[in-house]
Formats: sequence, C-alpha cells, structure tokens
Amino acid sequence: MTEIRSPQTRSPDIKSIDAAARRLDGHARRTPLLTSSFLDEIADRRVFVKAECLQHTGSFKFRGAWAAVSGLDSDTRAHGVIAFSSGNHAQGVALAARMHGVPSVIIMPIDAPRIKIENTRALGAEVVLYDRMTEDRDAIGAELSAARGLSLIKPFDDVQVISGQGTTGLEIAEQAAGLGISQADVLVCCGGGGLTSGIALALASRATGLRARPVEPSGFDDVTRSLATGTRQHNAAAAGSLCDAIVTPTPGEITLPIMARLCGPGIVVTDAEAMRAVALAWSRLKIVLEPGGAVALAAALFHGEQIKTPDVICVASGGNVDPDIFARALATLGD
Amino acid sequence: MTEIRSPQTRSPDIKSIDAAARRLDGHARRTPLLTSSFLDEIADRRVFVKAECLQHTGSFKFRGAWAAVSGLDSDTRAHGVIAFSSGNHAQGVALAARMHGVPSVIIMPIDAPRIKIENTRALGAEVVLYDRMTEDRDAIGAELSAARGLSLIKPFDDVQVISGQGTTGLEIAEQAAGLGISQADVLVCCGGGGLTSGIALALASRATGLRARPVEPSGFDDVTRSLATGTRQHNAAAAGSLCDAIVTPTPGEITLPIMARLCGPGIVVTDAEAMRAVALAWSRLKIVLEPGGAVALAAALFHGEQIKTPDVICVASGGNVDPDIFARALATLGD
Repeated sequence: MTEIRSPQTRSPDIKSIDAAARRLDGHARRTPLLTSSFLDEIADRRVFVKAECLQHTGSFKFRGAWAAVSGLDSDTRAHGVIAFSSGNHAQGVALAARMHGVPSVIIMPIDAPRIKIENTRALGAEVVLYDRMTEDRDAIGAELSAARGLSLIKPFDDVQVISGQGTTGLEIAEQAAGLGISQADVLVCCGGGGLTSGIALALASRATGLRARPVEPSGFDDVTRSLATGTRQHNAAAAGSLCDAIVTPTPGEITLPIMARLCGPGIVVTDAEAMRAVALAWSRLKIVLEPGGAVALAAALFHGEQIKTPDVICVASGGNVDPDIFARALATLGD
Repeated sequence: MTEIRSPQTRSPDIKSIDAAARRLDGHARRTPLLTSSFLDEIADRRVFVKAECLQHTGSFKFRGAWAAVSGLDSDTRAHGVIAFSSGNHAQGVALAARMHGVPSVIIMPIDAPRIKIENTRALGAEVVLYDRMTEDRDAIGAELSAARGLSLIKPFDDVQVISGQGTTGLEIAEQAAGLGISQADVLVCCGGGGLTSGIALALASRATGLRARPVEPSGFDDVTRSLATGTRQHNAAAAGSLCDAIVTPTPGEITLPIMARLCGPGIVVTDAEAMRAVALAWSRLKIVLEPGGAVALAAALFHGEQIKTPDVICVASGGNVDPDIFARALATLGD
C-alpha cells in the first residue's frame, strides 16, 4: 500500500488561488448561494447551495480550465491545448480555449452523455473518442500532445486547475461571511479531487470555521476510503454510476495529500439519493443538476447524521445531463 | 370601447420603486443575468436572461409581495393579508407574510398546478379554492377581507406591488450598465402587467436606452392588442394556455397606462414556442422555467424579426411547473 505523500512538484496554495481569481475576474461567473425553506426542513438544518451549474458551460470546470489556459505563456498557448474528460472538463477547456482564440483537442470516452460530446464540438473543439474499458486515455493524450505541440490540461491533478477550482472556495468564504456563517461543513461533489482540494485550500486560509468534505457515489468512494485509511485506494469498477461526471479510478497525486491534510471525512450517497436530490433541486431551487453534481446536496438531505454543524453548504458542481436521465429523476417526485 | 386613461389614484414611480428596493434589500435575491453562446446563435444576437426563477419562491412575485406587506403599517399588517392568484403571487405573499410573522389567506383557482397549491400551504398560508369559470374571486376576496380585517394584496394592480416588481428593472439597469449595454429591448413575460410596468418605469429613469416590451401567449394577448389599438382589450377565453401563470382577462387599470406610455410593441408566442424555450433554458442555462416564465425567452429566440436591437434582455419570470409538463418540454429536445 502506498502512503499518502505530496509529489515532488509545486503545490497549489492560497497564492496560486488568489492569482487564478484575478485571471478569472470578468470571465467566470460569481455563482449564487441558493436556499429553500423546503430543503432546510428535509435536512433539519440550514442548507446553502453554491450553484456552480450556473457557471459557464454548466459546471465549475470552466474555472480550472480558464486558470490553466490563461496561465500558459502566449507562445505555448498559441499551439493549442488538449484535454481528456467525461464531459464537463471538456466543455470548460473547449470554451476557455475558444475565448483565448486557440485550438483545442478533447479526448472523450465513447460512452459519455451524447449532449456532452455534441456541446464540446459546438464549442469549437476537435473531439477524439476512446473506449474507457480498453484504451489508455493518458497514452492517447501524450501522443497527440507531442505530435501537435499541444499543452495537456489535466482534469484535476494540475496546480493551475486546482487553483482555478479553488476560486469557488474564495467565493464561498466571502458569501458565508456575508451571511454571518462562521461554522459549517462544506460538502463537495468529488471525483479526482480538484474541486475539493482547491476549496479546502481556500477555506483553510479564508474561513477557518468552514471545513471541506468530499461526497462520492456508492461504489466509487476512493477518496472517502483513502481519507479513512490513510492509504491510497482505488475503485473496483471503472464505470457504472449515474454519477458518471465524478467517477475516477483513484484520487489525484496532488489532490489527495491536500484533502488528507485539510478535509473532514467523506460521505457516500447512492445513485437513488443523487437522483432524488436532482429532483429536489429542480423543484425547490429551480436549478438543473446532473446526478454527479447533486451528490453533495444528497448528502446534506439524506445523511444529516454524519453532519454536526447547524449550517451546511453544498457545492452543486454541474448540470450537464441527458434529458431522459433528468426525466427519470423528476419521476421520483411522485414517490 | 374604453380609452386608456390613468385611474384617479396615486401611481407608482421611480421614487416608490427606489423605496421598495430599500425595503427589499437583504430579503429578496439579486438574480443573475445569464448567457449562453448556444442561445446567442439561435437568436442571432446576444441574449441576456434575468433569472427571476431563482428568486425566493421561484418567481419575481416575491418582490411585489414583500414590497406590499412591508409597506403596510404594523397595526394593519398584524391582522394578516389576503391574496388571489394562479400560484406564483400566492407563494410570494405567503412567504412574505410568514417572514413578517403575520397570517395569510390565499384564494386560488381549483385548477392551479397542484404543486403551487401544496407549496402555498407549506409556506404557512390558509388556502381557499374557487372555480374560475363560475365564481368571482374578487367578491370572495372582499368578503374574507372584511370579515377578518385582512389587507388585500392584489396580484398586479397595486402601487406597492408594481413598485416591488420594478426593482427587477433597477437591477437590469445596473447589470446592463456593468456589461456596457446601452441599447436593448427588455422582453417581459406579461400577465396583468405588474412586472412589465414596474420594469418600464425603472428603465425610463435609469437606463433610457433600454425599452420594456410585453410578451404574451397566443390567445391571451390582451396587452399586446391594447397597446396596438390604444384601447383596452379583453381575452376571449379565461383559461386554456400552458402559460397559465400569465393569463389574465385584461390589463390592469394602473399598469396599462404606464405600459401605453413607456413600452414598445408586444410580442406574441405560441405554447409550443414557450415549451421549446423551457427546454433550451434547461439545456443551456441550467435553470428551471414554467411555460409562462419562458415566453420572453421564446420571443427572443423565435421572433427575432420583431426585435431591432443587437442585444436583447429577457426576464425569465418564474419556474413553478408540474413535473409532467416539464417532461413534455424536455421531450421537444429530440425534435
């Protein structure tokens, strides 16, 4: 078993997050913190939802993508960028590249939601599809990068990407202070840990009473188990959750040590709970979430026994979902 | 035929809107102005969507309700308030009353969406149902008001309510200025005209290059025809549109003269266009709209030939919709 240790590379910190925030200013949206008395009643505490589904391209991923693309020197950037992603990172990179006037190549799994593939192409990217059961996306990415001089924008294990996602945490710190909230768990939908570790870093400097906690779908709880055991854990399966947006094989090399140092325990929710949270966010907040973007809200609503703070903040990380899955979520409202 | 004339009563103006804004500060949400390059492409111009569906209770109606309830003297307010509404005004008044610690009675049509009736009760109101084909809601309201000392909060034809809705226009003026937008049509979902006239008043004082224009569903275009003919018009039917939230028999006594003075021509959209706009707002903006709350966006997307400005701002006025109607809207995405 591998112990959790920081890799021999520069780490993201509050300075790199502040720098990312300056580059994002005027380009990313400052997303609202939404509430509903109906959700408070279900959760039996005050629930605040950071609606990152309202970010450009429908997820927080635009922040990290913009931070990474804007952080390249202009000669390097001019050759273009490449990314691999189940979809949200893809759209974020595609739009950030287009807004910088540079080409992008996106490597996507062939089973990604159709709308994510279409949207990525519509945002101007060249899309290369691969089979995630049989092919190695890292090898494909490395080969294309070398051939065309493209800069690889990793989905989470990258200093600039984590710093960009961390700007979400800066906003949460400011918004919580504005509401007089000094103590709260901040639940974060967690795949590779870019958003979770970035928010954890921001909160550790700017809102010490707020604690980030990863939330994962059942069966894909590698981060939760890694934090609980103190050793890196892997998921048994590579796919098979409705929460496809946040399924990764194992936590990032950079993100895991940060989470181990700063985060509270993880929370695991079922696909059914995530779908119910999708429906309640539709009904009570009037926002559109994908199942993977709703796991933090699901944890607040259905696993309150694992939360000790009177207030809870949930990051609603994305809203790119196929209509048929969304219709299935709405059907749970009749239950 | 009756000519359009101001009634012999105090009219709302920029002062009453500014006063409402001060009372609303810290209680109503400042809603974001959202964009999507996908919507810009459909409309062939820049489209900005004022997402009032993210307002408390899921519609702009909370603004007017808060303005009216907070504007009562405290002795009068303590007896409670009464309102009649197809749903959104009901929820706004119920929540505003509860937040002021006073009782509310809501008179609702028996065919209002189920979720609106349930939500209004859950917000603490006593709900009285009536049949809008056979009963006179005004008479019912007057009787209950007299018996219990309740203050009637009208849905649109009231100085304080119009002033509260007008705060949406103050925000649009500020947000447009921040984006450097000095010329634009501002399309507003229009029933009785409270929101439209309030926004028109705010823009006339604070953003003279922005012009409010009412948008109505086909068959219920009393305001559009009243503005076009210069005489008060009525709708042939009392109900029968998917856009039930904005169906009223005729424009308000206070609102119509304001709209006649300040608004551009109305635009009429079909139910099918409204449903398509619901689906596109879901897909591209990640917000939930009801059909009546989507008519302004539908006008921008599908009736661009009636718009001359390079930028258009659409007010997305509400998102309280039954799941089955919403699922029907999503099904149009496959078309």
